Amino acid sequence: MNGASRVVGEKTLQDIMEIPRSIDAIRENFDSLKEVAASIVNRNCRCLYLTGCGSSYYSAMLMSIPLQIHRPKLNVRVIPSSEILMYLINTLSEECCIVAISRSGETAETLEVMKRGRERGTYNVIITISEKSESIKYADEYLYINVGVERGIVMTKSFYSMSLAGLLITLSMVAGKSSDMDLELDRLKEHAINTIEKRSIIFRLAENYINMGINRFIVLGSGPSYPIALEASLKLKESSYVAAEAMHALEFRHGPIATLDKNVLVVIINQDGKSYSYVYKLYEELRNIGANVLRLSNKDLDEDTLPLSKTSYEELDALSAILLLQLITYGYTLASGLDIDSPRRLVRVVTHY
Amino acid sequence: MNGASRVVGEKTLQDIMEIPRSIDAIRENFDSLKEVAASIVNRNCRCLYLTGCGSSYYSAMLMSIPLQIHRPKLNVRVIPSSEILMYLINTLSEECCIVAISRSGETAETLEVMKRGRERGTYNVIITISEKSESIKYADEYLYINVGVERGIVMTKSFYSMSLAGLLITLSMVAGKSSDMDLELDRLKEHAINTIEKRSIIFRLAENYINMGINRFIVLGSGPSYPIALEASLKLKESSYVAAEAMHALEFRHGPIATLDKNVLVVIINQDGKSYSYVYKLYEELRNIGANVLRLSNKDLDEDTLPLSKTSYEELDALSAILLLQLITYGYTLASGLDIDSPRRLVRVVTHY
Repeated sequence: MNGASRVVGEKTLQDIMEIPRSIDAIRENFDSLKEVAASIVNRNCRCLYLTGCGSSYYSAMLMSIPLQIHRPKLNVRVIPSSEILMYLINTLSEECCIVAISRSGETAETLEVMKRGRERGTYNVIITISEKSESIKYADEYLYINVGVERGIVMTKSFYSMSLAGLLITLSMVAGKSSDMDLELDRLKEHAINTIEKRSIIFRLAENYINMGINRFIVLGSGPSYPIALEASLKLKESSYVAAEAMHALEFRHGPIATLDKNVLVVIINQDGKSYSYVYKLYEELRNIGANVLRLSNKDLDEDTLPLSKTSYEELDALSAILLLQLITYGYTLASGLDIDSPRRLVRVVTHY
Repeated sequence: MNGASRVVGEKTLQDIMEIPRSIDAIRENFDSLKEVAASIVNRNCRCLYLTGCGSSYYSAMLMSIPLQIHRPKLNVRVIPSSEILMYLINTLSEECCIVAISRSGETAETLEVMKRGRERGTYNVIITISEKSESIKYADEYLYINVGVERGIVMTKSFYSMSLAGLLITLSMVAGKSSDMDLELDRLKEHAINTIEKRSIIFRLAENYINMGINRFIVLGSGPSYPIALEASLKLKESSYVAAEAMHALEFRHGPIATLDKNVLVVIINQDGKSYSYVYKLYEELRNIGANVLRLSNKDLDEDTLPLSKTSYEELDALSAILLLQLITYGYTLASGLDIDSPRRLVRVVTHY
């Protein structure tokens, strides 16, 4: 029982509505992000571990994409903290950097990886929205992203913010020319503002899914939108308890397509970029066989498509999809009669493993 | 319509029942597997891509585990063929080896990756159960695993066989001492024979899940059992069309635990090894909160546990879990009134992307 009366879901909605302001906060941090990028490059490490738990793990996966594409000689390993802890501690050495992501800076497995890494000589960076946390003890760089506290238990604003910060680090690491990131962030912010303004349309769409009997989601993404698909699935699972799975888009043809049914919605994140035409073809194929499809894109918009941002980086455009999918989740959860602010069995920080 | 009358699911069941014999076939191939391992080691490549689509991608993931743990300096990238094709072709070079897995040797995206890789100078190995296939054109090593054709459309025997072959390659690559693999394969085969003998018990268990109203599966694995969890989920999806998701075991606490419900079965692959005690603790936690749980293990067996093999390698024991989960899938699908031999919308080989 809360002391004050409150509206169902208001905390999470407030968090989501602060995303445009968070983009500005990160913009103000851009110099320190570039310094962190330079510090990692200067370490000249052989191996870079990007890690976290839950949503933060997906943030880590998103920030890996520019490196996977443009730094093939760097051994980039994106692995949940628990798996590093159980299987890979012996691979950590002074030749390795760890970039960990944690909203609280106190997630049990992530802390332990940083601690054990440090004992073995790793260079540790933590990205967090907590001004102070336990992880400062094990961090060479403590990157505090000042976007204010998150009121909700499920991660929304914090995911967007930490993912954006992470991406700006890795985009800096691979930048050929000094691109005008200020302009890109303007575009991202404009998308966030427009999306939030249109939220009632998105809520109605989500409510309609309930009316259609949709109780299972499959979220498809490619390249940078694959981690976003994972995060969207997690949002749906933890908020409305439905079955929600993410897949690499083209993997869908290799088996999972059998599972399509009237109660299934396929969400396709189809950002412009390297995978665009391939994923668009899959979208058409699924529409032709009568699947329920929601497409998110910034190209070839049609009545089944919600708009993504249009920047010069498909990584940023993929990230913009999560805001839409957070609002879909919010609307769907509310229309299910559930309270997204009080997901069952969840705690703010997982402190044991 | 088939010309001859047939029993529902008989093709897939025959495939599964040939797994013990397949283990022998692979044993006979052990020398060529070791040669392939040596050829990869001798290339001294900077980067090793392990790839495939669907089940074969999970085979590739399983074979990566010994390298991830014991060869930290090798840049091992396990990526679905479609994602390499769309995002990473430019990272392929003469410093890279590609090990591709494909039942038919003709999967569209996998073929294209081998072809494009070869144009850029990669060293290509293909693991397949097809004696002849298109991929021979792009392969430096064509590793044909002679386990006979697969009758079913869903991969069962072929997954087990190609995974085992892949694992024997990577275990050879990391072997400190020459371990007695013959003995380990005996143990694996014995497990397969015993499991198949007890199949009616497993079918009854699966049938009981239908009676309990289980219509959603979450399969948890760690280290080598994570790819097995993915493959088990895929089997369930493509055969019985239910919602089935795989997760890294300890990630389950970071959000997905909210989604537990009466209709959900959590399958926990809890092989003895590095993750054993951590995953066992999760198992106890889930039992204590009343979740429906099926555990697969080779240690601390109880009434909710199906036995895995007990070899000296947790990778092999994790692999042994797939046979149990193939039989669970078979029993569950049959009890659902569906024909596992004719999954809707699926074809034997995906030839477009």
